[in-house]
Amino acid sequence: MSGYELIKQIAEESREEMIACRRDFHKHAETGWFEMRTSSLIARKLTDLGYEVLMGEQVCDPEARMGVPSDEELEAGYERAIAQGADPELVKNTRGGKTGVIGILRCGEGPTVAMRFDIDALGVFESDEADHKPAAEGFASVNYGSMHACGHDGHATIGLGVAKALMAVKEQLHGTIRLIFQPAEEGVRGAKGIVEKGHLDNVDYFLSGHLSGGPQSQFVANSYGALATCKYDAVYHGVAAHAGGSPDSGKNAMLAACTAVLNLQAIPRHGAGATRINVGRLVAGSGRNVICDEAKLELEVRGATADLNEYMSQYAERVLKAAGDMHDCPVDIKLMGSAIPLRSDPEFALQLRQIAEEKMGLVHNTKETFESKGSEDVSYMMKRVQEQGGKAVFMRLMTPMYGAAHNRRYDFGEDVLVMGVKLYAGCTLGLLGK
Amino acid sequence: MSGYELIKQIAEESREEMIACRRDFHKHAETGWFEMRTSSLIARKLTDLGYEVLMGEQVCDPEARMGVPSDEELEAGYERAIAQGADPELVKNTRGGKTGVIGILRCGEGPTVAMRFDIDALGVFESDEADHKPAAEGFASVNYGSMHACGHDGHATIGLGVAKALMAVKEQLHGTIRLIFQPAEEGVRGAKGIVEKGHLDNVDYFLSGHLSGGPQSQFVANSYGALATCKYDAVYHGVAAHAGGSPDSGKNAMLAACTAVLNLQAIPRHGAGATRINVGRLVAGSGRNVICDEAKLELEVRGATADLNEYMSQYAERVLKAAGDMHDCPVDIKLMGSAIPLRSDPEFALQLRQIAEEKMGLVHNTKETFESKGSEDVSYMMKRVQEQGGKAVFMRLMTPMYGAAHNRRYDFGEDVLVMGVKLYAGCTLGLLGK
Amino acid sequence: MSGYELIKQIAEESREEMIACRRDFHKHAETGWFEMRTSSLIARKLTDLGYEVLMGEQVCDPEARMGVPSDEELEAGYERAIAQGADPELVKNTRGGKTGVIGILRCGEGPTVAMRFDIDALGVFESDEADHKPAAEGFASVNYGSMHACGHDGHATIGLGVAKALMAVKEQLHGTIRLIFQPAEEGVRGAKGIVEKGHLDNVDYFLSGHLSGGPQSQFVANSYGALATCKYDAVYHGVAAHAGGSPDSGKNAMLAACTAVLNLQAIPRHGAGATRINVGRLVAGSGRNVICDEAKLELEVRGATADLNEYMSQYAERVLKAAGDMHDCPVDIKLMGSAIPLRSDPEFALQLRQIAEEKMGLVHNTKETFESKGSEDVSYMMKRVQEQGGKAVFMRLMTPMYGAAHNRRYDFGEDVLVMGVKLYAGCTLGLLGK
Amino acid sequence: MSGYELIKQIAEESREEMIACRRDFHKHAETGWFEMRTSSLIARKLTDLGYEVLMGEQVCDPEARMGVPSDEELEAGYERAIAQGADPELVKNTRGGKTGVIGILRCGEGPTVAMRFDIDALGVFESDEADHKPAAEGFASVNYGSMHACGHDGHATIGLGVAKALMAVKEQLHGTIRLIFQPAEEGVRGAKGIVEKGHLDNVDYFLSGHLSGGPQSQFVANSYGALATCKYDAVYHGVAAHAGGSPDSGKNAMLAACTAVLNLQAIPRHGAGATRINVGRLVAGSGRNVICDEAKLELEVRGATADLNEYMSQYAERVLKAAGDMHDCPVDIKLMGSAIPLRSDPEFALQLRQIAEEKMGLVHNTKETFESKGSEDVSYMMKRVQEQGGKAVFMRLMTPMYGAAHNRRYDFGEDVLVMGVKLYAGCTLGLLGK
Repeated sequence: MSGYELIKQIAEESREEMIACRRDFHKHAETGWFEMRTSSLIARKLTDLGYEVLMGEQVCDPEARMGVPSDEELEAGYERAIAQGADPELVKNTRGGKTGVIGILRCGEGPTVAMRFDIDALGVFESDEADHKPAAEGFASVNYGSMHACGHDGHATIGLGVAKALMAVKEQLHGTIRLIFQPAEEGVRGAKGIVEKGHLDNVDYFLSGHLSGGPQSQFVANSYGALATCKYDAVYHGVAAHAGGSPDSGKNAMLAACTAVLNLQAIPRHGAGATRINVGRLVAGSGRNVICDEAKLELEVRGATADLNEYMSQYAERVLKAAGDMHDCPVDIKLMGSAIPLRSDPEFALQLRQIAEEKMGLVHNTKETFESKGSEDVSYMMKRVQEQGGKAVFMRLMTPMYGAAHNRRYDFGEDVLVMGVKLYAGCTLGLLGK
Repeated sequence: MSGYELIKQIAEESREEMIACRRDFHKHAETGWFEMRTSSLIARKLTDLGYEVLMGEQVCDPEARMGVPSDEELEAGYERAIAQGADPELVKNTRGGKTGVIGILRCGEGPTVAMRFDIDALGVFESDEADHKPAAEGFASVNYGSMHACGHDGHATIGLGVAKALMAVKEQLHGTIRLIFQPAEEGVRGAKGIVEKGHLDNVDYFLSGHLSGGPQSQFVANSYGALATCKYDAVYHGVAAHAGGSPDSGKNAMLAACTAVLNLQAIPRHGAGATRINVGRLVAGSGRNVICDEAKLELEVRGATADLNEYMSQYAERVLKAAGDMHDCPVDIKLMGSAIPLRSDPEFALQLRQIAEEKMGLVHNTKETFESKGSEDVSYMMKRVQEQGGKAVFMRLMTPMYGAAHNRRYDFGEDVLVMGVKLYAGCTLGLLGK
Repeated sequence: MSGYELIKQIAEESREEMIACRRDFHKHAETGWFEMRTSSLIARKLTDLGYEVLMGEQVCDPEARMGVPSDEELEAGYERAIAQGADPELVKNTRGGKTGVIGILRCGEGPTVAMRFDIDALGVFESDEADHKPAAEGFASVNYGSMHACGHDGHATIGLGVAKALMAVKEQLHGTIRLIFQPAEEGVRGAKGIVEKGHLDNVDYFLSGHLSGGPQSQFVANSYGALATCKYDAVYHGVAAHAGGSPDSGKNAMLAACTAVLNLQAIPRHGAGATRINVGRLVAGSGRNVICDEAKLELEVRGATADLNEYMSQYAERVLKAAGDMHDCPVDIKLMGSAIPLRSDPEFALQLRQIAEEKMGLVHNTKETFESKGSEDVSYMMKRVQEQGGKAVFMRLMTPMYGAAHNRRYDFGEDVLVMGVKLYAGCTLGLLGK
Repeated sequence: MSGYELIKQIAEESREEMIACRRDFHKHAETGWFEMRTSSLIARKLTDLGYEVLMGEQVCDPEARMGVPSDEELEAGYERAIAQGADPELVKNTRGGKTGVIGILRCGEGPTVAMRFDIDALGVFESDEADHKPAAEGFASVNYGSMHACGHDGHATIGLGVAKALMAVKEQLHGTIRLIFQPAEEGVRGAKGIVEKGHLDNVDYFLSGHLSGGPQSQFVANSYGALATCKYDAVYHGVAAHAGGSPDSGKNAMLAACTAVLNLQAIPRHGAGATRINVGRLVAGSGRNVICDEAKLELEVRGATADLNEYMSQYAERVLKAAGDMHDCPVDIKLMGSAIPLRSDPEFALQLRQIAEEKMGLVHNTKETFESKGSEDVSYMMKRVQEQGGKAVFMRLMTPMYGAAHNRRYDFGEDVLVMGVKLYAGCTLGLLGK
């Protein structure tokens, strides 16, 4: 049997196992930097398959992580992971939010193929309605306020299926395979630290993708777009005082915050293309009759290019700082996440499409390309690969969807898991086959 | 024994009983409109003493209450009251936040004396430090987040002591006595509804007061001042949208709120005297990348006179509304409390001082008058009495204090309870004695 | 001689006459609605050539004019026009700013061709430097503060040359020709009123264009683009008061204006494309110690489409109004100008290009199309023609330029005048030739 | 004849001369730092009377002057002064705005009495209505836009009458007299520089005052009050850009200015007393479609005490600067004037009242004291005198008024000139009489 046929067979045979795996991840959804149970189970399986496995600080420099929860929260998450069946040994590597796993398969001399599978959940309260399948079939999230509402449970599962399939055709491959299971993609917080650790250096081919609503098990090889973005938290520190007796003796952090909000929103539009700004959340003050002593803003800027995003970021930081100076309330600004636009290499996408169609029998969607909305920090990985002369794609794996992404009723057609294994593993064989 | 001597004796003999009563109230602190246990126990004692007792809607029109918690919260408070030993029968009258009690003693023809004792706690988390006496001696609040940090547990206890003492000298009195146990003074929410119910009509003499830091058991008969105030909650209703994809399809409630905050703060100063404005709390938005769909402001205005407060109120309401119009986010504005300045009648204060000094042997502080800070809604009661030709005072009852008022370590010297009974009951005898 | 050859010959022979005409217009530059001398001289020449001539209210409904100066200013402009050599009879039709001229040539049954030539100057102070040719050669503007810094003196001159040339080939034409000399294009104020008067109804072919920097006498047939725009003046009416004694008795128009400026600038970006907002000028208040009683804003919004411009306009009007409500300062908002994007019919542009190249020997620039920046209210004329099934183009007539458009040192190479006549008249013959 | 009688006689005999003098000053009104004609004529008269005279830099350090016009304006004012009959020699000392005069009379050993008479006009366009007396009688200001609308023409005239009267009783005096004719009181710009020059050092008694509406020729010896104030001009420097094409390449000074205005107005009220803030004038931007490159604010802060004024000044400067930082538009802030509250010494006022009533037969108004509104920079002179142990008063000289102060129809009853001489000269004799 040819390698391609073997991959197809393994993918099909793994259907039930993968569905079970995806539902287990779904039920025990873990948000960014909390994916300690998830990471431990991925690492266990990779190890068992025979992969060389990296965990903890080997994957991502702890200092390079963005938007990391507090130590207390992480510790509680660690305990929960253990209680919910994490691998008792391997989970230790993840303590303190050091999540993410890399599996490496070395097959002698040859090019390097890297793949990215993101594994984190969202801060969403999953629906318990009877017509929401995860609820009906008992795999809705038991972690209240954490939900796989963007399909990363599927991505992680596909990654493990790919690991199994590639190991089965190992003898037919030459070169090196890196399977990157990335934490904290939501909030675009996790990719950059992995890039900085060097895991995208010397990569010849890079594959990544995302589930997407569409006809069951079709794919688009060339997805692009998404706005560059930076996410910030800003906290103004004022001084409380009695609002009736001595308003002058306070330092009013709310005035600083509201001046910032209006002036952030008023950052001039840019002649070169689209920009965005949003302060999505503002919490300020303690009581009605107390001068506000602390105000926290959660905001993001975006731009159609990295330069436009940079224009917005610099202006926003200047506004944030000056608003604090104005009311004598120092501000702490913290970068919570960032991403740049996606650009798939078109010839490489075409090459993969041909492999997938001809060798694997997969169906390409009628759309030649697919414009991504929102932001994706795999963009940093792609950029590093491309800067060093490698080729990269971001693909779309289509399947029927129930409820919009990020919605509490989100779910997807699980057949796509099988197709995903065929797509990634088949393309890899096409690239590294002897 | 003269009536005055009898009062003194009863006050002294009640010392331990009053301390126990105060500590019980302290331990089971109930914030505004939750004083269901407290009201039931006050009503029980007044009934047992032989007073005619009003409760529930007889005290305060439910519609006239300001800043009332949600039905769910009130129901939970009702269940807690029962669980913590409320009078099982009388507490029923308070269900739904219908708190407050009035005790009436009729002694034939003669003038009417009314007194106000406020009974509610604050939304403060009481200290559990070993050097905080309520914690050390086991009467710190068991209701987490509710604390008698302003001495109203003392006020309520004094009111009950006064009830006992006056009943003992009933035969020496002519006229009518109304003991008003007011709910929800904090936030200045409770007095106005009692006034509107008519309980301050046809009152010849009105006595009220507040514990105050100073030499043990001294008093000041003439306290005045405090700023007129209105408290508001304002909620802007916007529409959420994805901040990257279609910011235009949202309606940004945070822009409305921040515009309101700046312009509220910018309401022009008034040539006729002091004004104040404070937005003490602002909570807006859900997530970083979502156009903010709701923003809530908690604010207050103040003025040195009722007119100045009215100027601020009207301007503030205009600003709040227009900021909503500007961003197409309708606003709900709710009056959460209000008060006017205090003015004691100076001759009446002098008359009471003479009774207290000469008949009861109490010590007036060296200060002739005492300027009140903050706001007090007993001001509405005093104004109604004064408008109808009656006389009114707001007094200061001094005692050593530990920790500032409204602080989580607040406590006061309990000897003042005895003095308080002498002061109120002695003065009443002086006014109504045959 | 063929008609085309005759047109070429007339154009070449008119070179000196046209240069003189252009310099006369340049020297007596008149800004929007002041083009009374200019209009009278155009009407005189059209009349002398034998055209049916419309002036005054026949051209544009006075009520439909936007951004009209005050009666006093217009009257002074009228007197200046007479003093500077306006046609003494015809100028009377323009009194009160009723400028603009339409010349009609009827050649029996056939299609209707309309052309637009704009005739107004800008509010710019022309350079008197020795190396500025109009200054050096004595035709710099004698009307201080008015200058043809955008080439409309050339447009008007070309229009008259076209009138002469077409009259010469009249016998070879069938159909009707309308030569529209439009006032007040700067500020996009004049076209809409002419459209509303019906002069663009039942037009089969519409030609218009603008001088543009480039190789001498080349043209581009298909120019498109420009942002839709609305221009507004907004005046807030407050009440003055002494800022020290009684700031409360004023109504502060500056607070309204500044709140408006910030919130206008903060109008959310639109997901569907580019938008713009600018408050370019703000004048508020009288003296330092007086509450500001009047504030005037001059602003504009823009959008990549008419819908996006409408989004901005509606939001801006809401902001302007609400800011006035907020500080009790009513606002008067006046539309001072507007335009929509330009769209040339590509097949029609191609047809004209072929006529110009093949019949007239003109040279098309290497650019196939030319994207317009800024705004042009000929867009309203084109839209009306296109809505009724006619074809329209906006062309670029290239010539070397000295100094940027709208700059005080602007000038252009006059050879383009000859080319312009060939282009417009030749194309007309191509469209209407028997 | 006693000295007091002699003063009375001289005052009465000077009536017509003083009216003529006042009308001459009125007709040739000169605003702050332009009082070059006025100063030269005062100096001429003082010299002729035999006073030692200081002018130019001897009076006020040029660097210490605030709110000085441009050199061009001052030079034009100098030429006007000469053309309007300034003293040809003495006016030279005032060139460049070095206005103000001090006359000194030394009468041997004894205390020093200083008096302040302010001499500048306001930037007001005087009424030419027939019922406005200066217009009807031909002494309305010929300097369009400058008008004595606050009575300083009267103050200067009284000062000269006092000089004449005191010289007549010179033999009866011991000590030293300093008559200070102060420039630029409007805008509170001139006094501080004179104080810094030392002219208020070693003064035992200081007299000053102001005309005031009231019964003819009554006075109030003890006037006090006025708010402390600072006046600022602030100019933001941005960068212009095309608002449609590249709004991002500009730096928007109007955003900085409007943010400053809102936040200045929002400076928190002070618990210790009254504060004021006003931005009275804002001019920003050039054209509708150009990003605003310059914005100028004229503002003032005030406070009931010097400390409160300082609180406002510091906060305002911080707001102004931070608003510029926010939009990258540096700001130039210039102090244009300042004053502190007035405080007359009550015993000294009483002493003067007794002299005026008993020796001079003048009538004190029924008001014991008079609260000043607005601001007066004589406050700096009084403070210096009082700090060194001297006594100071600010008095009110009453007379019927027609039209409010600072109004274009302002005028006053001229009989007060005679009374003014009696008041100042009589009191000086009372203080320094042998």
